[in-house]
Parts: sequence; structure tokens; C-alpha cells
Amino acid sequence: MMSQQYPSVLLENAVNELAALPGVGRKTALRLALYLLRRDADYTERLSSSLLALRRNVNYCRTCHNICDTDECAICANQSRDHAIVCVVENIKEVMAVENTLQFRGVYHVLGGVISPVEGIGPADLEIDSLIERVASGTVKEVILALRTTMEGDTTNFFLNRKLEPYHIMVSVIARGISVGDEIEYADEITLGRSIINRVSFNDSIKTNV
Amino acid sequence: MMSQQYPSVLLENAVNELAALPGVGRKTALRLALYLLRRDADYTERLSSSLLALRRNVNYCRTCHNICDTDECAICANQSRDHAIVCVVENIKEVMAVENTLQFRGVYHVLGGVISPVEGIGPADLEIDSLIERVASGTVKEVILALRTTMEGDTTNFFLNRKLEPYHIMVSVIARGISVGDEIEYADEITLGRSIINRVSFNDSIKTNV
Repeated sequence: MMSQQYPSVLLENAVNELAALPGVGRKTALRLALYLLRRDADYTERLSSSLLALRRNVNYCRTCHNICDTDECAICANQSRDHAIVCVVENIKEVMAVENTLQFRGVYHVLGGVISPVEGIGPADLEIDSLIERVASGTVKEVILALRTTMEGDTTNFFLNRKLEPYHIMVSVIARGISVGDEIEYADEITLGRSIINRVSFNDSIKTNV
Repeated sequence: MMSQQYPSVLLENAVNELAALPGVGRKTALRLALYLLRRDADYTERLSSSLLALRRNVNYCRTCHNICDTDECAICANQSRDHAIVCVVENIKEVMAVENTLQFRGVYHVLGGVISPVEGIGPADLEIDSLIERVASGTVKEVILALRTTMEGDTTNFFLNRKLEPYHIMVSVIARGISVGDEIEYADEITLGRSIINRVSFNDSIKTNV
């Protein structure tokens, strides 16, 4: 696309910032900016203040690192959930995806990603130490690994399983009913729910050939 | 999609506002909101303030209604452009599109849309009166209609042409024909038919610049 001449610096600035969003090119950014101009001014005020409020006041649960409005998330604070079963996920989206299946009554641990040497993400960049601490405190009986079914996810599973071995708890991994290479976020609820019910022991899951 | 349980009211509000943007569904809105949380807080501040600055301080050119930062746009203020030729477009995006061709040295008039009874847009909702005033003031020699090639665009062209008749100026319409680079074989019959009826002298066809 050839370089655009914007008729207004204000417009150009807005387009530049919008185009920095993932999946938003300059053409889409321009369309969004012009949409704001067509709509009532109140909408832009609401949009901006909601984004600022989110970014400025966001909290993460002190136990599972899920996003929340106080210092403990609603799931961790819920005593009717099974705090002995911890489902390890990459991110907030995956918590929401598993919650939507209505198949899981345990609690979560949000890692913040998976180990990825290519992207320079090592174990120290993830919430792994706090997971080990939770397990070491003695209340956890099972850790379910629900990471993406890619090489990076597998690597992280191996790493976590080795770290958790000294505590002699059950370490399971969600059933690979989900296609290899797919992301957890986009799985349909039934498949994802089944994969939690049919979770298998991590050591069983790495067997090839009997 | 089943109703989502958001772990945070702040997140839910941000998703709701983002999902009101055109072409942004709830899943994309969530992805954008989480992206803001992953990025430095400065980015959200810059994004919000650029959107607010645009919406709060936007100006429209007093002559052509193009967006600008002062009360006259750079094109109208440019005395080296031909103010006797006015290109009528729907919106700011079309000004930018025509400017990008580098083929037009006249000025613009931004209508703000086309007449569309289905969407409840009548002549009074568009900048038609101000166009007539510009022409009535006597400096305009030609009006080029560059509206969309749909029934609504055609209707608007007819309406404008009738309104402009008393002033005895040239009213032209951008050529409709086969896109440059398109194959004749795949052109639709109406476009191809129009391009034959409106054929031009070969020598005229290789001219550049207005």
C-alpha cells in the first residue's frame, strides 16, 4: 500500500495507534477512526475510559494469577470448588474457555504462556515457581496440564511434570481429543469438556507403542 | 456463542465497548483487551488519548467538509490547486483515495454519504446545500461526481445534476468501466456494456492529470 496522506494530524495519530493493535492494519485503523467520528462523542469517551480503567486498575489473583477486580479471583474465593485439583492454563482466555465447558469444578493456575526458546520465554518468565509453592503447601492432590498441543506446550508439560515429581501428586494432561496444532481457545466446548473428563496420567500420555 | 463469564468487570466493560466497533466481534474484542494488558501501560494511554483527541478536537473544513485540524483543510487552502473543479465524494476515505491517484489537482466537496431511502438518508442529511452555495458563488466551472456506482450513488448523481442545472456549469461523472488489470472475460455485463457505450477516443484515453 502506498504511503497515505492524512488530512489531519489528529486522524493520523489515531490511525497509527489503532494500527498497532494485533490484526488491525492501516486500512482497518482508518475505518475504525472514521467510525468514531460518525458515532456520538460519548462512545469514544466510554471506549477510552473502559480501556484506561482496565489497564490502570487491573488486578491478578494472588493465588492463580487469573485477572480479577480484587486480590483474589471469584474461582479461588469459591469454597464449593475443589481446591485440591489445579488446572494449569496458559492464559486468561483459556480459563474462560474451560469455565465455559462447565466440566471443571477445580481451580486454576495461569502460567502466563508456555516455554518457548524461539520467543525467548523461559521457565523464569512464567508463573511456575508459584505453582510449585502451591503444590508444596500440601493441599493440591492433582495438577491437570491444559496447555496448547504444540511443541512448546509439550515442552512445558515435560518441564512441569519433572518439577512436580518430588511432591508425589497426580499430574495429568487433558486428553488429546483436540487436534494437534490447534489452540485451546478455539476448541468447541464439547470437545474441550471431553478432553478434561478423559484426562490421562502424564506418564501414560507420553507412551508410544505398547 | 454461549454467554461468556468474564473474570473481571473491568475486562467485561472493555470487551463490551470494543465489540461495538465495526467488524469487531466479542472474541476479537477480548483478544484486543488482553493485548492491552500484555503491552506496556503507556500504549493504552497513548491509544486512548489519541482517540479522545481526535473525537474531541476534530475539525471539518468550512468549505469542503473534509476532516482537518484547523477550519480550512490543506487542499482548500492550497492556492496552486484548481478551485474551479470540485470533485464530489461521499466521505474522507474517498478524498484520500482520489488524492492517492495523484491525478486530480482540483478541490473536493465531502457530501457525508449518499441519498438512501432504505437507510433513511435524505438530501437534507447531506452537505448538498453547501455544495449549491459554492457553485452559486460563481467560481466553480465543473463538478465531478465521484460517488459509489450503486443505485444510491446513481440517485444522488441524478439529484445533484438537477440541482446544479440552473448554474450552467459542467457536471461530469467519473468513468465507469473495466478496472485496469481486469480481464474482459470476467467483467459483469452491465459494467462491460457501460464501458462500450461510454467508449472514448484512444488519444483521449492516454491523457493523464486533470
